[in-house]
Amino acid sequence: MEIVDKLLNHSRLALSKAITAVENEYDDAVKIMTEIYPHTGNAYVIGITGPPGAGKSTLTDKLAKEYRKRGKTVGIVAIDPTSPYSGGAILGDRIRMMDLTADEGIFVRSMATRGSLGGLSQKAGDAVKLMDAFGMDVIIVETVGVGQSEVDIVKTADTTMVVVIPGMGDDIQAIKAGILEIGDLFTINKADREGTDKLNIEIEMMLELNPEHVGWRPPINRTIASKGEGIEAVVDSIEAHKAYLIESGKLNDIRKARIKNEVTAMLNDHVNRYIDKNVIQTDEFDNLVVKMQSREIEPYSVVDDIVGKVLK
Amino acid sequence: MEIVDKLLNHSRLALSKAITAVENEYDDAVKIMTEIYPHTGNAYVIGITGPPGAGKSTLTDKLAKEYRKRGKTVGIVAIDPTSPYSGGAILGDRIRMMDLTADEGIFVRSMATRGSLGGLSQKAGDAVKLMDAFGMDVIIVETVGVGQSEVDIVKTADTTMVVVIPGMGDDIQAIKAGILEIGDLFTINKADREGTDKLNIEIEMMLELNPEHVGWRPPINRTIASKGEGIEAVVDSIEAHKAYLIESGKLNDIRKARIKNEVTAMLNDHVNRYIDKNVIQTDEFDNLVVKMQSREIEPYSVVDDIVGKVLK
Repeated sequence: MEIVDKLLNHSRLALSKAITAVENEYDDAVKIMTEIYPHTGNAYVIGITGPPGAGKSTLTDKLAKEYRKRGKTVGIVAIDPTSPYSGGAILGDRIRMMDLTADEGIFVRSMATRGSLGGLSQKAGDAVKLMDAFGMDVIIVETVGVGQSEVDIVKTADTTMVVVIPGMGDDIQAIKAGILEIGDLFTINKADREGTDKLNIEIEMMLELNPEHVGWRPPINRTIASKGEGIEAVVDSIEAHKAYLIESGKLNDIRKARIKNEVTAMLNDHVNRYIDKNVIQTDEFDNLVVKMQSREIEPYSVVDDIVGKVLK
Repeated sequence: MEIVDKLLNHSRLALSKAITAVENEYDDAVKIMTEIYPHTGNAYVIGITGPPGAGKSTLTDKLAKEYRKRGKTVGIVAIDPTSPYSGGAILGDRIRMMDLTADEGIFVRSMATRGSLGGLSQKAGDAVKLMDAFGMDVIIVETVGVGQSEVDIVKTADTTMVVVIPGMGDDIQAIKAGILEIGDLFTINKADREGTDKLNIEIEMMLELNPEHVGWRPPINRTIASKGEGIEAVVDSIEAHKAYLIESGKLNDIRKARIKNEVTAMLNDHVNRYIDKNVIQTDEFDNLVVKMQSREIEPYSVVDDIVGKVLK
């Protein structure tokens, strides 16, 4: 395909168009992904997550610039939390990215939650592969990590960084507990705020409680991203984690698991669409719903019947 | 089944055990749900969501007490944001509920995100049905509304209330935009804080932009839940919305759509489990993953092959 040839020849326009095709599920999306697949697997993928307001976007920008200083090209996939209904990124304009986009070695793309069957996680994964095939050395996937789907996205990364800030409430605390366990490294941003030492101790304690950290102890860095402070140390930590994964052979395991997850998601997506088209969107099913509503029949035997008709 | 008979005879222990069966996917869970189904459809379901720290739990407690004053029995399903990995509700203890549980007319159940195939949305829906069959007049489903799955849960309600508080940052703002559209009513909690009027105007503006509100204009109430202020007006608003839904015939549409969504989720879940067991967890698939990792084959044709083998 022409668009794939151009993308592989470093056309930014082709890259942009290919991501749009994937995002909007255009007819040629699967063909594009099929053709670029042999050219993927070279980029190092960093996932960045954390509660709302932690300054992830600013931190992502600074990390990208630091990687540029070190001679690496950088792709950024930024997941915007948006309406499950309108599908639009209402406040998702990333004007802040303007000063990055002048650099040919950086490519930034925002993706919105559209709540479609396709699933954001898969689309974000495709965007990463497109940037990978394009030739980006490092790809950063940034998302607001609260819900399961956001965590799923970050799980596709080689290294996952969790960003937290001091002085958040109790409810936030509960959410942090949810995402703390996925962190290969931690960054306390806005570290000039009161409560930084306390937060550091809390994370240390959580790490103590987690028995999974054999061979790699997640480091806790401090940054003030808005002032560019502490950024180099964060990149050093990411690189240390990368070196650890390569030496231990774990990078191979992570990437194998990633492929397995991706194919599973594609399979589920495919089959679920089939069911939607051939079962849910039929008059026959509508009649069944009316009977369930009047409690004449119950949904569990309905499901068994349909499954028997759909699966081999 | 004995447990169902007991539940229908108002045994709180049976209700509790039935929810545990559903939550942990015990073998008898489907049988329980099948038997109770004819006894469901009588409760009025209220969904409460909002960003972390908005005080939803406190508000839920006060609303429950107000409903008790009005002679209604109340079930509460509280969704705790927890780790996708450990599966445990780390900070999910709801000690605050202690003073509610002395009342026989109230039943509170926390459910944790377990990230299993079963899906929290479905389990929360089952818990609602069990409380419904038990005979609760009103059931409140409370969740931290940020991710798609949390929104899915609240979408199963008859009336959805969005709780916000003044003085949250820009990132929170973006999330609010996502959940604002699902609100049938809005409550500004902690309304003695600075910024309450500003927030009220912002919500009004968002509502102006949303053309879907024909026949029902979502009211905006103000509460200080910790002091019990403004609670009666919120319950009045919920009851007004209920009356509107009944008179307009929309309650029937909502409940029809809910059944449709539930059965779709059950179908997808069933088929996805089948694929997991018969495809993903096989040595044959493992071999394919190795070939994909070395880029000998690409995943898109692998998916097509498997789909052809699985679907009729």
